[in-house]
Amino acid sequence: MRAMAKAPVLTPRAEDFPRWYQDLINKAELADNGPVRGTMVIRPYGYGLWERMQQDMDARIKETGTQNAYFPLLIPQSYLTREAEHVEGFAPELAVVTHGGGKELEEPVVIRPTSETIINEYFSKWVQSYRDLPLLINQWANVVRWELRPRLFLRTSEFLWQEGHTAHATYEEARDFAARIHKDVYGAFMRDVLAMDFVLGRKTAQERFAGAINTLTLEGMMGDGKALQLGTSHELGQNFARAFHTQYLSKEGKQELVWQTSWGSTTRMIGALVMMHGDDNGLRVPPRLAPVQAVVLAIKGDDAVLAKVHEIGDRLKAAGVRVQVDDRTDTPFGRRAVDWELKGVPVRVEVGPRDLENGTAMLARRIRGGKEPVSIDSLAALLPTVLEEDQKLLLDQARERRESRTSDVTTVDQAVQATAAGGWARIPWATLGPEGEAKLAEHSVSVRCLVTEDGAVPDADETPGNVAVVARAY
Amino acid sequence: MRAMAKAPVLTPRAEDFPRWYQDLINKAELADNGPVRGTMVIRPYGYGLWERMQQDMDARIKETGTQNAYFPLLIPQSYLTREAEHVEGFAPELAVVTHGGGKELEEPVVIRPTSETIINEYFSKWVQSYRDLPLLINQWANVVRWELRPRLFLRTSEFLWQEGHTAHATYEEARDFAARIHKDVYGAFMRDVLAMDFVLGRKTAQERFAGAINTLTLEGMMGDGKALQLGTSHELGQNFARAFHTQYLSKEGKQELVWQTSWGSTTRMIGALVMMHGDDNGLRVPPRLAPVQAVVLAIKGDDAVLAKVHEIGDRLKAAGVRVQVDDRTDTPFGRRAVDWELKGVPVRVEVGPRDLENGTAMLARRIRGGKEPVSIDSLAALLPTVLEEDQKLLLDQARERRESRTSDVTTVDQAVQATAAGGWARIPWATLGPEGEAKLAEHSVSVRCLVTEDGAVPDADETPGNVAVVARAY
Repeated sequence: MRAMAKAPVLTPRAEDFPRWYQDLINKAELADNGPVRGTMVIRPYGYGLWERMQQDMDARIKETGTQNAYFPLLIPQSYLTREAEHVEGFAPELAVVTHGGGKELEEPVVIRPTSETIINEYFSKWVQSYRDLPLLINQWANVVRWELRPRLFLRTSEFLWQEGHTAHATYEEARDFAARIHKDVYGAFMRDVLAMDFVLGRKTAQERFAGAINTLTLEGMMGDGKALQLGTSHELGQNFARAFHTQYLSKEGKQELVWQTSWGSTTRMIGALVMMHGDDNGLRVPPRLAPVQAVVLAIKGDDAVLAKVHEIGDRLKAAGVRVQVDDRTDTPFGRRAVDWELKGVPVRVEVGPRDLENGTAMLARRIRGGKEPVSIDSLAALLPTVLEEDQKLLLDQARERRESRTSDVTTVDQAVQATAAGGWARIPWATLGPEGEAKLAEHSVSVRCLVTEDGAVPDADETPGNVAVVARAY
Repeated sequence: MRAMAKAPVLTPRAEDFPRWYQDLINKAELADNGPVRGTMVIRPYGYGLWERMQQDMDARIKETGTQNAYFPLLIPQSYLTREAEHVEGFAPELAVVTHGGGKELEEPVVIRPTSETIINEYFSKWVQSYRDLPLLINQWANVVRWELRPRLFLRTSEFLWQEGHTAHATYEEARDFAARIHKDVYGAFMRDVLAMDFVLGRKTAQERFAGAINTLTLEGMMGDGKALQLGTSHELGQNFARAFHTQYLSKEGKQELVWQTSWGSTTRMIGALVMMHGDDNGLRVPPRLAPVQAVVLAIKGDDAVLAKVHEIGDRLKAAGVRVQVDDRTDTPFGRRAVDWELKGVPVRVEVGPRDLENGTAMLARRIRGGKEPVSIDSLAALLPTVLEEDQKLLLDQARERRESRTSDVTTVDQAVQATAAGGWARIPWATLGPEGEAKLAEHSVSVRCLVTEDGAVPDADETPGNVAVVARAY
């Protein structure tokens, strides 16, 4: 009666990880491919995850004093060329609008791949004196970067993100702000809400954002041992300020260029969520993120059962649990149970006629696994604890995987070997260096980031003792 | 000492209304023109208004059972041509991407001007049986419609909006849903939160959305007596369902086309807010919308004053008032007061050294006007009442303006005269008809909507007794 379908609904991860990923995205109804190559349709369940991410992150961003604004989608092509490295980095990925309102445009415009250039155009107008600094702006927006090898959520030609852009009076202030976003906004959010494990580090010169003097990154290990960049925070130095004349009158009455940062996190986080926490039965959503933390399922459609599932739903809601009642008993119970498994809802409370007699319900825990009968009256008190336990378990499992699959090595060959076996390698940066980095690239292995000996974020590439974390990456 | 600058900071409305509007948008720091013609930069204060609108509206939309999702920005050009009226309506306004990733595209793609076509492509995949209906989807997104005569917030080449798209099993269900959005979502939100006055009505065939069988509208009267369309809700009939084969298997086992609706509200609401509630001193923000309901200003920078403004700020916050403390005493007080006037913050609490002695503060009410000393201890109890009074006053003033400037007429000439004098006219639709509508158009006057004799929304254009509300419009 309660037996679940035994045939796997997804391609097992061990068999074909990319196929498993694609299957899961599709069957959990997270997203579909769009009609234009590389674009995607984010379906309601996937978008619900994004909304929860946005809400939480937005509050954390605002706590830093940053305000939201909105800049145009369309940027004159000439803006991009003002910062030399920037245009070199983005030119191959641009989507270009040549016609508008039925006419050919005098100057083609590009769809923003990121907004440093157009934002600096306005910063240069808004910033006059030291009183206007720091200027801390964020926007939630879509951007387009043409993708030749698209993959849903991970690499899409259009994606959704937030991009922060700030201007400061001094180098130190900008540096500290970029670090604060890196660790206290992105790091705290991804660890505490997404239950993600990652390494906080610094990109090598080779891997920096086009136009930055320093890029800070969060690198997570996915279920197949590959790395995924989860978010980045850049120190832009005065590169864009110089290109756009973004300057201020200092207290001493001198015109000075501002120091800037930019930082972004994207819908890619949904892909990371799938690949970090998913298993062969589907997604596992961290309870603190989950739009639906518990689903209460009616096994059969008789009146007593239907009344009870709604009663339980109300009680759980009153206990602060985000709950959904599933009373669609015209669909077989097994199919619905598999569907909620796929979607990764942390807890299922299953209620049938026999349960009513006993005053119990079946409690199925998606994250830890297992199913046991519990007294219906205890549910409201029990669930918040269960959800917090499972939140922690996800983080522990992710950390355990990264630690067990990371090895310390001393040569490029060993590093290549370790990553080919589905893991990460740590190698002294003094040993590897830019030359070793180039050799790794021949094997599709990259330096994900540099960390200090004790795992902190280094102040410079060449800080003695720096360790390179190397991996294959998405 | 507390004297305000007497020279007008804005062009007076009576002198030049469009100029006043442009001045206000600029000086209240709501938005700037973008570099690409017709685009705009929404500055933090303007975006803060939009965020509050989004938040409230989003909750109301979700209460109808609608879920958010996200569809691609880029639409194959061929999609638009599938619904004949639709492409005819939008073709002149399209922005066309011809190059992506450094290459010319095989098929040009357009930036969405609206998403009926791409959404139907997916609805046709997602909807299989009657069990999948109703399908209720909304997205918050940007759209591009090339504008030849742009005006900030009112007509911009790119704007932000929400667009709802639904599919239903029957004509009646779709009709009722479109009406529910029109009245219970848009109507209730704009009246109760934005303090807006408007007429709810039905568009004539001439004014319908391209591809709809019925368009419901909310028409507001601006400060100069012109009309502005505040939002629309469309019955699409089966037009898009036919073009995209969006069909379902009915309970009776037959394939049936779905019935659809779509509905949108945009950043234009910010422009409407300015033109409906603004006065010669700037914007007046309805308290329920206001991101900042009360600002507590330190007149001078001495320690006792600074301590007191923060204490008052904390007390008001505890009383549930959205408050901001302005202690930037290195900027002259008068300039800051004018700035808050311009921005339309409903209440200013001004505190100087003399006030401290008396235990009073100066309470300046932006909406009703006037300034009076009040005991500091009474503020927390007083303000919520003051804010609700002012919320009501804005709505009353807007309604009073529309009523006093609307006249009942019986000929086209009288209608033209009434609108030329800065008002609206009501004329029996049986008298006017499509021919009269065409004559009005020669004078740049249009039928904003049809209403029944007693002011309700008619079921059809030709319902006996229908009255046409005619006006010049933005």
